[in-house]
Amino acid sequence: MKIRKDAFAPKPPMGWNSWDCYMSTVNEAQLLENARWQAEHLLPFGWEYCVCDIQWYEPTAGTKPGMEYIPFARLNMDEYGRLLPAENRFPSSAGGRGFAPIAEQIHGLGLKFGIHIMRGIPKQAVFARTKVKGTDATADQIADPNSICLWNSDMFGVRKGLAASQAYYDSLFELYAGWGVDYVKVDDIAHTGPAESGGYDAAHEIEMIRRAIDKCGRAIVLSLSPGPAQIGKAWHLSQNANLWRMTNDFWDSWPQLKKMFGYCELWQTHVRPGCWPDCDMLPLGRIGVAFGHGRTTNFTPAEQKTMMTLWAIFRSPLMLGAELMSLDDATLALLTNEKVLAVNQNGANPRQIARDDGHAVWVSENEDGSVNVALFNLGDEAREVGFDFAEIGWDEAACDELWTGEGLAGARISAKIEPHGAEIWHCERMA
Amino acid sequence: MKIRKDAFAPKPPMGWNSWDCYMSTVNEAQLLENARWQAEHLLPFGWEYCVCDIQWYEPTAGTKPGMEYIPFARLNMDEYGRLLPAENRFPSSAGGRGFAPIAEQIHGLGLKFGIHIMRGIPKQAVFARTKVKGTDATADQIADPNSICLWNSDMFGVRKGLAASQAYYDSLFELYAGWGVDYVKVDDIAHTGPAESGGYDAAHEIEMIRRAIDKCGRAIVLSLSPGPAQIGKAWHLSQNANLWRMTNDFWDSWPQLKKMFGYCELWQTHVRPGCWPDCDMLPLGRIGVAFGHGRTTNFTPAEQKTMMTLWAIFRSPLMLGAELMSLDDATLALLTNEKVLAVNQNGANPRQIARDDGHAVWVSENEDGSVNVALFNLGDEAREVGFDFAEIGWDEAACDELWTGEGLAGARISAKIEPHGAEIWHCERMA
Amino acid sequence: MKIRKDAFAPKPPMGWNSWDCYMSTVNEAQLLENARWQAEHLLPFGWEYCVCDIQWYEPTAGTKPGMEYIPFARLNMDEYGRLLPAENRFPSSAGGRGFAPIAEQIHGLGLKFGIHIMRGIPKQAVFARTKVKGTDATADQIADPNSICLWNSDMFGVRKGLAASQAYYDSLFELYAGWGVDYVKVDDIAHTGPAESGGYDAAHEIEMIRRAIDKCGRAIVLSLSPGPAQIGKAWHLSQNANLWRMTNDFWDSWPQLKKMFGYCELWQTHVRPGCWPDCDMLPLGRIGVAFGHGRTTNFTPAEQKTMMTLWAIFRSPLMLGAELMSLDDATLALLTNEKVLAVNQNGANPRQIARDDGHAVWVSENEDGSVNVALFNLGDEAREVGFDFAEIGWDEAACDELWTGEGLAGARISAKIEPHGAEIWHCERMA
Amino acid sequence: MKIRKDAFAPKPPMGWNSWDCYMSTVNEAQLLENARWQAEHLLPFGWEYCVCDIQWYEPTAGTKPGMEYIPFARLNMDEYGRLLPAENRFPSSAGGRGFAPIAEQIHGLGLKFGIHIMRGIPKQAVFARTKVKGTDATADQIADPNSICLWNSDMFGVRKGLAASQAYYDSLFELYAGWGVDYVKVDDIAHTGPAESGGYDAAHEIEMIRRAIDKCGRAIVLSLSPGPAQIGKAWHLSQNANLWRMTNDFWDSWPQLKKMFGYCELWQTHVRPGCWPDCDMLPLGRIGVAFGHGRTTNFTPAEQKTMMTLWAIFRSPLMLGAELMSLDDATLALLTNEKVLAVNQNGANPRQIARDDGHAVWVSENEDGSVNVALFNLGDEAREVGFDFAEIGWDEAACDELWTGEGLAGARISAKIEPHGAEIWHCERMA
Repeated sequence: MKIRKDAFAPKPPMGWNSWDCYMSTVNEAQLLENARWQAEHLLPFGWEYCVCDIQWYEPTAGTKPGMEYIPFARLNMDEYGRLLPAENRFPSSAGGRGFAPIAEQIHGLGLKFGIHIMRGIPKQAVFARTKVKGTDATADQIADPNSICLWNSDMFGVRKGLAASQAYYDSLFELYAGWGVDYVKVDDIAHTGPAESGGYDAAHEIEMIRRAIDKCGRAIVLSLSPGPAQIGKAWHLSQNANLWRMTNDFWDSWPQLKKMFGYCELWQTHVRPGCWPDCDMLPLGRIGVAFGHGRTTNFTPAEQKTMMTLWAIFRSPLMLGAELMSLDDATLALLTNEKVLAVNQNGANPRQIARDDGHAVWVSENEDGSVNVALFNLGDEAREVGFDFAEIGWDEAACDELWTGEGLAGARISAKIEPHGAEIWHCERMA
Repeated sequence: MKIRKDAFAPKPPMGWNSWDCYMSTVNEAQLLENARWQAEHLLPFGWEYCVCDIQWYEPTAGTKPGMEYIPFARLNMDEYGRLLPAENRFPSSAGGRGFAPIAEQIHGLGLKFGIHIMRGIPKQAVFARTKVKGTDATADQIADPNSICLWNSDMFGVRKGLAASQAYYDSLFELYAGWGVDYVKVDDIAHTGPAESGGYDAAHEIEMIRRAIDKCGRAIVLSLSPGPAQIGKAWHLSQNANLWRMTNDFWDSWPQLKKMFGYCELWQTHVRPGCWPDCDMLPLGRIGVAFGHGRTTNFTPAEQKTMMTLWAIFRSPLMLGAELMSLDDATLALLTNEKVLAVNQNGANPRQIARDDGHAVWVSENEDGSVNVALFNLGDEAREVGFDFAEIGWDEAACDELWTGEGLAGARISAKIEPHGAEIWHCERMA
Repeated sequence: MKIRKDAFAPKPPMGWNSWDCYMSTVNEAQLLENARWQAEHLLPFGWEYCVCDIQWYEPTAGTKPGMEYIPFARLNMDEYGRLLPAENRFPSSAGGRGFAPIAEQIHGLGLKFGIHIMRGIPKQAVFARTKVKGTDATADQIADPNSICLWNSDMFGVRKGLAASQAYYDSLFELYAGWGVDYVKVDDIAHTGPAESGGYDAAHEIEMIRRAIDKCGRAIVLSLSPGPAQIGKAWHLSQNANLWRMTNDFWDSWPQLKKMFGYCELWQTHVRPGCWPDCDMLPLGRIGVAFGHGRTTNFTPAEQKTMMTLWAIFRSPLMLGAELMSLDDATLALLTNEKVLAVNQNGANPRQIARDDGHAVWVSENEDGSVNVALFNLGDEAREVGFDFAEIGWDEAACDELWTGEGLAGARISAKIEPHGAEIWHCERMA
Repeated sequence: MKIRKDAFAPKPPMGWNSWDCYMSTVNEAQLLENARWQAEHLLPFGWEYCVCDIQWYEPTAGTKPGMEYIPFARLNMDEYGRLLPAENRFPSSAGGRGFAPIAEQIHGLGLKFGIHIMRGIPKQAVFARTKVKGTDATADQIADPNSICLWNSDMFGVRKGLAASQAYYDSLFELYAGWGVDYVKVDDIAHTGPAESGGYDAAHEIEMIRRAIDKCGRAIVLSLSPGPAQIGKAWHLSQNANLWRMTNDFWDSWPQLKKMFGYCELWQTHVRPGCWPDCDMLPLGRIGVAFGHGRTTNFTPAEQKTMMTLWAIFRSPLMLGAELMSLDDATLALLTNEKVLAVNQNGANPRQIARDDGHAVWVSENEDGSVNVALFNLGDEAREVGFDFAEIGWDEAACDELWTGEGLAGARISAKIEPHGAEIWHCERMA
């Protein structure tokens, strides 16, 4: 039976990811501690995925100051060139058990479990000439020496058009399904595009991964990184993936946040069940703990609200990047506003109404005929931002602001908004 | 009262345009002869616009062999630098009446009337230093010397941010509204994009034209040419225009037609009432009469059907480029298939289901829950192309092919299609 | 008899140019006042050309604050579309005498006379449809509407391959030869190159100008501007011009001066009699008088010496851009060091010996077997820069520094040089 | 004592190279058989280098049909990651003797011996973590994972700025000097340039190789491949290398030969003793023996003469790519015309006099004051090509054509030349 990819991510996935906090160094204890906190405080609001990000197979990750990735590091690998958790970092994986024990614990908390992988096959497997499971081929025969990642030296891409290439990806997802993985974030794969702008062509690997998931018997959500994905590939991405990143890595910087409005404008017509253009993780609370980048998010409260509002109205996946145990109340409140989360999960047909250098307005629709209107001040001074209901053919509406509960009625909503700030209104048509 | 642009092109505009046949040389007699034929034979099927294309203001157009445009030709112009029909070619325009008499005749036939303009202000006006109507400014003050069209020397673009620039465009549309124009095709304006690929930035002129229409008191449909429009500008285009060209000029060549499938893939999520990504005119029947390019379309019957089917399912505007009086019965049948035209006018949510070098499949939806399925053979050999209703969650369907009337029922439609050919099926779900 | 272009600029031309001081506003009084000062104080050292730069045909130049060039300004033009000096600015040109009276005065001072022109034909001539002298053609027939200058709206380039285009350029140089012009700086012509980097193809205009000079009966030195000229066009430039600019406009900024070392590295093998890659004018003393940019050069004394040393050893043309009457003694000394000027005029085979971000060394050769060695400190701290005579196969040399007269002997010259400073040594081999 | 690179290639190197004939499969028997023939028939005319080209360290080269390079092949390598001849192909290298025995034999024939290497360090050494000789570093520490060759998977480039990187190159040239190597052709290194056109930055590796040669105690000629080298790097190349390729691989195709005239125009000012822009090998006689590409050169006799004439007048290195044992008399005559070879070895100041799509003229100078004039017909029809001695300031000359011996005197040489053909004249000034 064919797995229908759009069926198992009908709403934007919500969860936590280890990257923003632990980067390439996360270990079993950290993962599980966060998972327990997540299950207790965030899961009730829908934050269900717990995702272990990059380099879990690298025993020495984090041992060299300033080096997120150690070139040509020795990786933990099975006889088929498939990477396994580094046992010194993930002790429960010992004895070839992989991530199964951790997945089991996380599932026991009511969460879903995700992992990160790099596209391709380890260079180490190529030079060890490991077998491709279920074939007579060896790793060197399916690796493409020219398909490399510019920021991590672990892998070669696999060749196009070879049955053994597909067999290799099938063997990966067979393994992950066996572990109980629910979500895979594949990296170095979404920035397809012209070589002159640093892009590469990994379209065939995206397709192979799609087919491997369809065969693996488990509904594994497929997330592609990093961006910028190319808008010209939108149809291909929507056929094969559940999430794809619109930008390169997003961090806690206002210029990056402001630029995200442009990406949301660009991709807005591609948002639909099973297909979620991705604004990337939410760098909130305490982040960057690894490699001495530790800090509380640089985003001001206004900017945090703007980020949550944009991610909500656009229907971006919501993946939190924070050290959960130290989350303060204000941040927690931001993440657990049920009305705002409902906009993200249920608001249909999100679309930009206006945007210039100083402001933006977005609208989405609810099933009951009401609409959500988000107002953004993108400038450095407080200013009025408004929306006329005539734009959607209404005379007047009754409105509630979802962050503050403030109410308002009339032919227009309008607010004086703080610099870099936002409001989001739930509006019902008045007869 | 604001004119709501999306309201007055709720369905893809259908009509006839003088370019493919008469190019830059069309005259009043030709225009009216075609209009009368259109009113009699095509209007009953929805073909309502009659559009006079480029260079109607150029008295000597067509007098130099092989030159569609004569560099620095003297243009017929009023005291405000506004171009007027060349009286030798459009006699009814004499005495400053412009296109009003022709518009009146065309309206009298039950048709709507459209004209073509180039963006910008005539260079001739700049060197004559004509007044900008309603201002103290002169043409040289609003012209941008660096904003030129690479294939026609008539105009300079107008400067950004000047009130007099807006006033100039306002004066144009005031004139056109006074004539009774219903549709304006603005040229040299849609291929915004990076200069290195021949693009230019005319976004401010698009906005000025939008505002000028909104003020002019007449619901003038706005069509932008030529393409390729940039997908990154999709939101801007959809805010300001009713139609915009996805490609450079489309002619009767199979490689161009095959490439159109790629453009339709790219723009499919932007098709909606009032916003019509444009596949360009249909070069059918007798075309290229001017400049000795006269011929019957190079498209084979199979290719003609493919073109009509793609334009229909994608919901492209349908603008016919043919000498109407000599249309043969087969072509007329192609243009007057009411079921196919209904797909174009009413089929919602058109989307590509599959495409590779050899075939393509598209689907759109009807209000009654039935769907339209178009199957295309893009290869040079006959081949099977099919569609499984499981793709849309149906078990079985009862189907009729709209060109042939053939019927079929089951879990899949499948057909052996001739090279470059197409079929389009109307499908009802079976319980 | 063919004029041999390489014969009449056997050494790098030296002179004065009005641009750096008066920009587009220079007038007859200013030109002649500077010429008189030049004849008295600089001519004895070889500074012989006096060049009137851009816009001398524009009566209103300088009348709008901040606008060096007024778009679509009305130009003073003869019946053949040839520009004439604006009589309000150059009174002696009245009565159709053009620059002849001024040339005569300048020649009387012992100087040579140069003018600036833009390539192409005035747009104003095109719309006035002036005759091309000696032909039946009119300006609109030879103008290329797509060949425009991006920073000045006066001209269209002329079309390739037309006899009337050549006739137009012939008519220009016939006029200039008649006035007694010795040097023409043609602008908007040397930055041939790919359109995506702002270049254009004016190669045919360069060739037409070459032919026009060869026919005009007067040895007019041809200087092409602005750069950057493309190194891939070096052979074409050397066949047609005497000087061509390696860079865009050079002003009194250290980063620009430092970058010039890269251009000199690039072009060093193309320096030879009649062919002078051009570092551009020397912005010394009082400059920028027009448009309120008036200042004394921003170059420090060290930087001034570095500039003169580089221009000298590389054999750049030396065109002074200063208000001569207010030159101070230090600047005058810099410009009249006969030994340094001799390196410029006579040093053969200039070549870069070493260069990195912090220093550079150049060598050239004298007829008597001695060499010139220039040492440059390109860094922001004082540092040692040296040269081993073993590099040129010598054991030891006896040396004199040309700016200070300091002496030194040995296997190496080495000096502690001030930041941004330079030394230049004359070195004789020791037996 | 510093080795002066320009001193040991004072004239364009001449020799034979195994590539054009044997490609990646050459073996000891083939190499020596050709060397013996070369010594007997070609060495007397100056053809002194015998060069073993790529993949001599690859035991399985040539065993897979159509694959010049087998991805991730196992290479023969010493404990320091230095590649050694494959013993199955070069039996005399057994026992760690490397190329020393072959070099000894070739030297015994009176020839000089050259080898080919790829820049960088074997990937195989990286994953085996071999020591870098004379250091504590291992291969993985000096390899740059992003510096790869796009057409051969053997190597990673080495990192910039590390002492161990230099030590690695030093260890290579210590080995080669010990073997008796006289000439090294380094590949994947000369096409420095922008990434978007397939270039890469290997400037630091060129510098490291220069230093390694300077230290190795042997005058090893350094040849860099493949092109196109970037003209903007001319100074850097001339400081570090003796030869560098102006183009990508040159084969026996007229369009490639015609394009070479453009490259020669571009690089002509950089030809001087020790610095030889390289037109690449001469694909003459029987070539392409490996991989089933075997053929007699596709060049017609006229084209062969054109090639030899251009290589001669331009002073390109002359490296023959042919199966020597089967050379026919006509080809041998082409290669042993002493007068033509003398132009290559001694003609000073080669320069292009004229070139357009149909013809080219070049001149160079002899020590006795005579000149060489090459006339080329680049078109597809016979045509006259000529040269006026007035171009070089002579009245008349007495001339001999070097291929035919034909004589001629006058103010001009002029000849009707066959399509794609050439003549080369030795000309003495007449009083």
